[in-house]
Amino acid sequence: MDKKTVTVVGLGSMGLGMAQSLLRAGHKVFGVDVDAARVAALGNDGGVSAPLAEAAALSDIVVLVVLNAAQVEAVLFGDEGCAGEMRAGTTIIACATVPPGFSRDMEARATQKGLFYLDAPISGGAVRAAQGQLSIMASGSQAAFDGAAPALDAMAANVFDLDRVAGAGSAMKSVNQLLAGVHIAAMGEAMAFATSQGLDLGKVVEVISQSAGTSWMFENRAPHVVEGDYAPRSMINIWPKDLGIVSAIADEAQLPVPMALTALDQFRAAAEAGDGLADDAAVVKVYARAAGLKLPGEM
Amino acid sequence: MDKKTVTVVGLGSMGLGMAQSLLRAGHKVFGVDVDAARVAALGNDGGVSAPLAEAAALSDIVVLVVLNAAQVEAVLFGDEGCAGEMRAGTTIIACATVPPGFSRDMEARATQKGLFYLDAPISGGAVRAAQGQLSIMASGSQAAFDGAAPALDAMAANVFDLDRVAGAGSAMKSVNQLLAGVHIAAMGEAMAFATSQGLDLGKVVEVISQSAGTSWMFENRAPHVVEGDYAPRSMINIWPKDLGIVSAIADEAQLPVPMALTALDQFRAAAEAGDGLADDAAVVKVYARAAGLKLPGEM
Repeated sequence: MDKKTVTVVGLGSMGLGMAQSLLRAGHKVFGVDVDAARVAALGNDGGVSAPLAEAAALSDIVVLVVLNAAQVEAVLFGDEGCAGEMRAGTTIIACATVPPGFSRDMEARATQKGLFYLDAPISGGAVRAAQGQLSIMASGSQAAFDGAAPALDAMAANVFDLDRVAGAGSAMKSVNQLLAGVHIAAMGEAMAFATSQGLDLGKVVEVISQSAGTSWMFENRAPHVVEGDYAPRSMINIWPKDLGIVSAIADEAQLPVPMALTALDQFRAAAEAGDGLADDAAVVKVYARAAGLKLPGEM
Repeated sequence: MDKKTVTVVGLGSMGLGMAQSLLRAGHKVFGVDVDAARVAALGNDGGVSAPLAEAAALSDIVVLVVLNAAQVEAVLFGDEGCAGEMRAGTTIIACATVPPGFSRDMEARATQKGLFYLDAPISGGAVRAAQGQLSIMASGSQAAFDGAAPALDAMAANVFDLDRVAGAGSAMKSVNQLLAGVHIAAMGEAMAFATSQGLDLGKVVEVISQSAGTSWMFENRAPHVVEGDYAPRSMINIWPKDLGIVSAIADEAQLPVPMALTALDQFRAAAEAGDGLADDAAVVKVYARAAGLKLPGEM
């Protein structure tokens, strides 16, 4: 077995599970997070705490599970960034949802330092992250794929190999987020519509799940509405960010994306109403408020 | 076995297959359509041609597979309508996508004439209609369900029993159409977006189908875009009609449905560009034209 030293930067709901999957596969794992409690949580599973620069200097692979492009750039090339500390030949696995052009820029800057860069956005949610069963939409040089392989094997059930250069992974992730965001907003709209017609929402989930109107997001999120349970599995606040990236990419391509923008409006309205940290199924409340409808679980 | 005499009004792509399924189950079937060629086609399978009033007078069950509410009303209660010819206790199975309030009105008028009315919109497409494997979203009195049962058994794989009064079937179908229409428009937007980013569209279908961004409509329609094949399985022109019904119902409930309306705009644009009779996956062309993108199959 090919045991490596891996640093995971960002131990949120996704990164912590990915780091645990790496540990389970027998790799040595450094965990880095601004929140010491997250680092301590990984320590229980055998993770090692170290400052970013030290951890990166000792690692074969650095996995970035941070929030956005600004954080990726800061971690690698900022004032306290670690790219300058890494040994030549170290592989960076960049998992944030970012614009394709940003990924190509990061790849170019990493290459200048003798580092390999895999553009590798993730899909699947926290449960599959903890199981090592993520989907990864990856693109990069053959050397980046080869360098990343031991970590990818531990973290992912599916690695989609999309191109020999960074950018395609990020582009595919944005295609997925465009659809996923639209489908969640449509779920909210449809559940409010069904409520307005007096339909039993449990039956709506049962019937639609077996009909042509279904989607992965409908089947996953509509039950939250039926149960009136908005404990966050994936938050409203993800969507202004990710659909904002879709919008920016589309603007550059001079492509109108009215479905994505209309969905974006609904998530912004949900965040403005105070539901930014709630489960994204709470987008249904935007509709219910507008029409004076009572949803399950409301007084 | 409970062999009945059944009239099927409307022998389009759905109605013809449903009539064939009824024949296969051993029922006597009258076929009625303004297009004599469609009636002749059913004749090859054992269907009998007769004027609407005569067929209805002889039938235990009358199945309406017409286009819209106006046609349902005309067939039943218009100048040449057949409701006055039916024997008391005849069951009407109304399959068109119509507003719930219209279904309740039809049920009330049918009841006055001693007829049973099942609000029974269908889902599943022409292939499943021909196989007797439709999904039917049904609501109506117990007597209507009992009267309709022999025909439902022949035509459907799933009969969802939604309420003891007409309206719920139509409402559920509109929920399904809201989602299905939004998902098709989103598919077109996503495939154009992917094209603008230089992604291989075949890979997009492969990856998205295994990711959280997938939908039944994406998996069914996106391959048409990959193949550049817009031969109509289900036409663009369906959507201005069905999303128009969604919009009207929502207006009455004072519920905003911006996702449905944005999708409606894309289908109207497709129809105005001359693609009304094309497969509904052709909505992608609205996007491609706007951004000057070349889709598969285009010169």
